[in-house]
Amino acid sequence: MKIAVVGATGAVGREMLSVLAERDFPVSELVPFASARSVGKTVEYQGKSYAVRALSKGCFAGVDIAFFDASDAVSKEWVPQAAEAGAWVIDNSASFRMDEDLLLCVPEVNGEQLRARVAQGPKSVRERIIAGPNCSTVQLVVALKPLRDHFGIKRVVVSTYQSASGAGTVAMDELTSQTQGVLAGESAIPQAFVHQIAFNCIPQIGGFKHDGYTSEEHKLMAETKRILGMPKLRVAATAIRVPTLSCHGESVSVECEKSFGLDEVRKLLGAQPGARVLDSPDEKIYPMGISASGKDSVDIGRIRRDDSVENGLLLWIVSDNLRKGAALNAVQIGEILVRNNRQ
Amino acid sequence: MKIAVVGATGAVGREMLSVLAERDFPVSELVPFASARSVGKTVEYQGKSYAVRALSKGCFAGVDIAFFDASDAVSKEWVPQAAEAGAWVIDNSASFRMDEDLLLCVPEVNGEQLRARVAQGPKSVRERIIAGPNCSTVQLVVALKPLRDHFGIKRVVVSTYQSASGAGTVAMDELTSQTQGVLAGESAIPQAFVHQIAFNCIPQIGGFKHDGYTSEEHKLMAETKRILGMPKLRVAATAIRVPTLSCHGESVSVECEKSFGLDEVRKLLGAQPGARVLDSPDEKIYPMGISASGKDSVDIGRIRRDDSVENGLLLWIVSDNLRKGAALNAVQIGEILVRNNRQ
Repeated sequence: MKIAVVGATGAVGREMLSVLAERDFPVSELVPFASARSVGKTVEYQGKSYAVRALSKGCFAGVDIAFFDASDAVSKEWVPQAAEAGAWVIDNSASFRMDEDLLLCVPEVNGEQLRARVAQGPKSVRERIIAGPNCSTVQLVVALKPLRDHFGIKRVVVSTYQSASGAGTVAMDELTSQTQGVLAGESAIPQAFVHQIAFNCIPQIGGFKHDGYTSEEHKLMAETKRILGMPKLRVAATAIRVPTLSCHGESVSVECEKSFGLDEVRKLLGAQPGARVLDSPDEKIYPMGISASGKDSVDIGRIRRDDSVENGLLLWIVSDNLRKGAALNAVQIGEILVRNNRQ
Repeated sequence: MKIAVVGATGAVGREMLSVLAERDFPVSELVPFASARSVGKTVEYQGKSYAVRALSKGCFAGVDIAFFDASDAVSKEWVPQAAEAGAWVIDNSASFRMDEDLLLCVPEVNGEQLRARVAQGPKSVRERIIAGPNCSTVQLVVALKPLRDHFGIKRVVVSTYQSASGAGTVAMDELTSQTQGVLAGESAIPQAFVHQIAFNCIPQIGGFKHDGYTSEEHKLMAETKRILGMPKLRVAATAIRVPTLSCHGESVSVECEKSFGLDEVRKLLGAQPGARVLDSPDEKIYPMGISASGKDSVDIGRIRRDDSVENGLLLWIVSDNLRKGAALNAVQIGEILVRNNRQ
């Protein structure tokens, strides 16, 4: 298959190339795209160098699947052109996630909808576009799915601990260089972030909306409802940037409809595809960035009752935001397309 | 007044000496105590050096107020001896916080109770002991007090973002040296923390209890109820260590009894002694460690409705855990003692 990766030089783009290779994605031809200022750079795929190209009219001719991890503006302009050219498009931007006629997909949660759509064939060019959610949403819905299925969920309160990598490689570089500077007694000069990130938590990810929430918080709340197919689910989100390089953490309180046993919860979460239960506090085993980094799983631990509400449950969830939160999720969507197209 | 500071060489102890000096506490004689291995060290107070002493039988003779910031075990042994010797004792350990006959005090929240007790004179030697809460509790109750008073509060869900300084100077040193090491490509060797803290969040502060909560989470829940005088308040806490040097952050969802206006909330929080409202998101102004560090205030921002519940409110609270969270709170308790004794 001819595969295009748009945003190939970014943090997620590079991760996508790794994941495609690791999972033996059937790539016969690879076309990496990036912004004009990246043209001239190369990316590596299975030991081979590929020159990065700029997007241009007709550039998606013959492409079977196009993976997009670019800005909302780039996706808005180019995703429809790729679909028009006949490609399936998997887009990680926020531009198409809330479009009612399109799928917002986390394969382990609502992959059935995608399989059904692929099996019956897209009814329009637009339906060739499949959106991938925000990184902070992916890990939350993977953990919530079995709880929804078995106990029903009424309300979710989530506070995030998001790493610099969510803001791209420039942001990761800023965290490391700024940290070195601060340790050397220099004052921080924020560029990628709006404030100092070295040894500091910033309670702003994205821009602010009229209701005092950030765009990141809005995405997390709206996408969670959409992917779980629960438009009336009550969700409250607070998104905080913390000075870590990779992986997002989430402290989550879930109010379930029905009562549950904690062992039952652990069993169900452990059986959930994409999830890994790390919950042996006596052995100091629980989810952390240092153990989730580079892994495919959504790690869930600190599982305990929230006695402040009936049928309440507390969870601590960590996942590699570049992988399951973005690159891996997109490639898994691609795998569904490949598998169903072949049948 | 003859003042003793037990734990004078620790992170909080040193901060106490600064705060006592800054606030012109009426110190006529200062006696700094520390553990046996610190004997030989000196501490500075108002430009003068004081040799640190070890605790010994009779060492509190003539002391008017003894500030303790030591381990639970040291407090358990020595706090009663100081009270027995006739001193008022302000103890920041967890050893006496839940004793029903003793006060657990945050002056801006339940200072009236302390003033009443001092005015009528302690009814027993034990009543000369006043406990200061856990650092993460202090900033929470300062923010909750005006909400309790004006709207009533039913339920609180709190997730913390706690700095290394909460674990002492050794932990702060570990964060900086380990961060330097990790940046240089070395692997981390945790000592003060149970896992790598450099660029990592650790979902464990204190030891684990049978219910899956940590001791830190238990303290935060139990002390909040006690200081607010609301034994039936429903509180759920998750305590996370983040790689920052100073100041704790808290993401808080509060379910109030009555409806409220957000401007009313901002006004009430702004009028609360000890609190500072930093809530101009459009100007990128909100509480952060870099702006709270070294300050006396509990900073409150990101004030918005939690529409996932009736009368729900979301807050982001940051305060310097060594100051208002420990040293300043203790000195403020001391000021009440001094003022009331003089009258």
